[in-house]
Amino acid sequence: MASRRAPIAGRYTAEEVALAARNRGMPLEALRHDVTPAGLHYLLIHFDIPAADEAAWRLRVSGLVRKELTVSLTDLKRLPATTLRVTMECAGNGRGQLAPRYPSVPWLEEGVSTADWTGVPLATLLRDASLADRATQIVFHGADRGFDAGVEHHFARSLSVQEALRDGVLLAYAMNAAPLPPQHGAPLRLVVPRWYGMASVKWLQAIEAVEQPFDGFQQARGYHFRTRADEKGEPCTLMRVNCLMTPPGIPDFYSRRRTVEAGQVALGGRAWSGAAPIARVEWAVDSAWRNAQLGSSGHLCWRSWSAIWDAAPGEHELSCRATDENGNVQPLEAPWDLSGFGNNGVQRIRVTVRP
Amino acid sequence: MASRRAPIAGRYTAEEVALAARNRGMPLEALRHDVTPAGLHYLLIHFDIPAADEAAWRLRVSGLVRKELTVSLTDLKRLPATTLRVTMECAGNGRGQLAPRYPSVPWLEEGVSTADWTGVPLATLLRDASLADRATQIVFHGADRGFDAGVEHHFARSLSVQEALRDGVLLAYAMNAAPLPPQHGAPLRLVVPRWYGMASVKWLQAIEAVEQPFDGFQQARGYHFRTRADEKGEPCTLMRVNCLMTPPGIPDFYSRRRTVEAGQVALGGRAWSGAAPIARVEWAVDSAWRNAQLGSSGHLCWRSWSAIWDAAPGEHELSCRATDENGNVQPLEAPWDLSGFGNNGVQRIRVTVRP
Repeated sequence: MASRRAPIAGRYTAEEVALAARNRGMPLEALRHDVTPAGLHYLLIHFDIPAADEAAWRLRVSGLVRKELTVSLTDLKRLPATTLRVTMECAGNGRGQLAPRYPSVPWLEEGVSTADWTGVPLATLLRDASLADRATQIVFHGADRGFDAGVEHHFARSLSVQEALRDGVLLAYAMNAAPLPPQHGAPLRLVVPRWYGMASVKWLQAIEAVEQPFDGFQQARGYHFRTRADEKGEPCTLMRVNCLMTPPGIPDFYSRRRTVEAGQVALGGRAWSGAAPIARVEWAVDSAWRNAQLGSSGHLCWRSWSAIWDAAPGEHELSCRATDENGNVQPLEAPWDLSGFGNNGVQRIRVTVRP
Repeated sequence: MASRRAPIAGRYTAEEVALAARNRGMPLEALRHDVTPAGLHYLLIHFDIPAADEAAWRLRVSGLVRKELTVSLTDLKRLPATTLRVTMECAGNGRGQLAPRYPSVPWLEEGVSTADWTGVPLATLLRDASLADRATQIVFHGADRGFDAGVEHHFARSLSVQEALRDGVLLAYAMNAAPLPPQHGAPLRLVVPRWYGMASVKWLQAIEAVEQPFDGFQQARGYHFRTRADEKGEPCTLMRVNCLMTPPGIPDFYSRRRTVEAGQVALGGRAWSGAAPIARVEWAVDSAWRNAQLGSSGHLCWRSWSAIWDAAPGEHELSCRATDENGNVQPLEAPWDLSGFGNNGVQRIRVTVRP
């Protein structure tokens, strides 16, 4: 871990700003959409978006399989397709709010979105390839390449065979009923529902069945919860329980500070958890908590919530907090992590209510 | 000008980072596309993206007209449509590189893109409404509302009647052959080719013909070139001559520093100017300038350029510089502006060439 970047306190670096400009967040008013419109879905692109020629693209399936495969997009599109509505969140969402924080994309709270992904279940292809009994891990190799912490590599991640065969893990070639856009992995990506976004490898070129745990940079070094730089840490996997509120009223351009008219104000947003369905959303004005109304929910996507706030003139702080069916509940303060992963501390919105 | 925000030196504020996360730039590798794919086009959204119901949306044309109009999207789509390929750049592009800089969206260089816009020439509607002889300005009112520098307003801008009637000024309802996305002004926006992006009012609700110069915030106070806070300044209008290079090789995740293999390296990018067609692009390695090859160009959009670099091992700085047919040429250093408008100083890319 010698080459990890040193933590930062206070104002943000030019590198963080450049990463924020490349890796767009979802503006929170887009929480109004069940499915995030194309172009508003958050993005986390480690290196450059690769140039991709769909006609020439091949997906190789190799390693501990009885039958190696090389499939084109045309081949894949001939197989039975599934469309799933999936909420995806960046493991680093909320990193920019920590103090000190790890130098990386300085997400405040906008690194989450929902899309309809269409493609072929990964299990279909793995069945065709027939995994050898010794295979324990499936490695997914993307076409995007660069350096991190001095190590040159292409983006690659693994799943256990059990996770890889799970219902809902897709080889996706369409998003929101349109071809996958370049920035979301065209022409082919993995989608792993309920996990943080790093598992959903974009620009997918190769799938490899292996026996030993995969030691690639993004699997063995990146994406671990750590409290000290010298520990191995725990891998990031399922999305922690989290929720957001659409900021009510109108904003100030620079501070984004909100102004709301006194009276009945409709509040609402979305809640999600990788571990279990959402069981409860609470909302608070100035830390007085009450239950919100829960809306409908898909199997793998966020659940809407709503409330009516009888807003009295003055300065107020709004917040919201979700609990899932496993009893996981968001902490009131951001949990500490050295790399800024898994920050599901409750959102706080300062609002001026005018008479 | 008393309530202008104070200039910032050094590292970036949380407000600037939040604006960068909302207002995405175009990753520079997307310069490879003649038309920026949907979702990679840069965004500048002053307030919130308004909720819009296309079926209920009406555009009112009023003020100094002989015939007031109220038209639906269905009405507009019945009129003869035009599609134009237009390069648009944010007037604040490059602001984040200045020192000190104005507190706003801290664009480094990625606030430019090209799209195919489809809609009805504004002149068609203004002819239908029949402008009164006294009309000198056309005001465009958007649905987006908020505060800036303490002043509550909706986004609104004006053009002189002469500019408004110019060929190419469109009421656009489609982008890249698909319905306008919410973040680009759905269901209806103005597109003013050759001007900085602020002229192309999104979420267009009303058009008003007036006699006196429009004194709205975004027209009279925002979007002026100023060197001192107490001067009126000169309005931002046409895009200044500018060009960008696709960073070659592969990046480091955090620093974006590039690594390139020695030998023949294909360089390329795009150049544009609101005033006149691009006449020349030069590129430089370590400040030794030579001419680039120019590609084809549309009437209102960027022109591609290319060059082959015989890259020798070591540390190098690449740059590029455009000249338009009016003789405008980019400055080597960023021109000073109090609000960070019109920064067309040449791009510099540091590259490590490895043997």
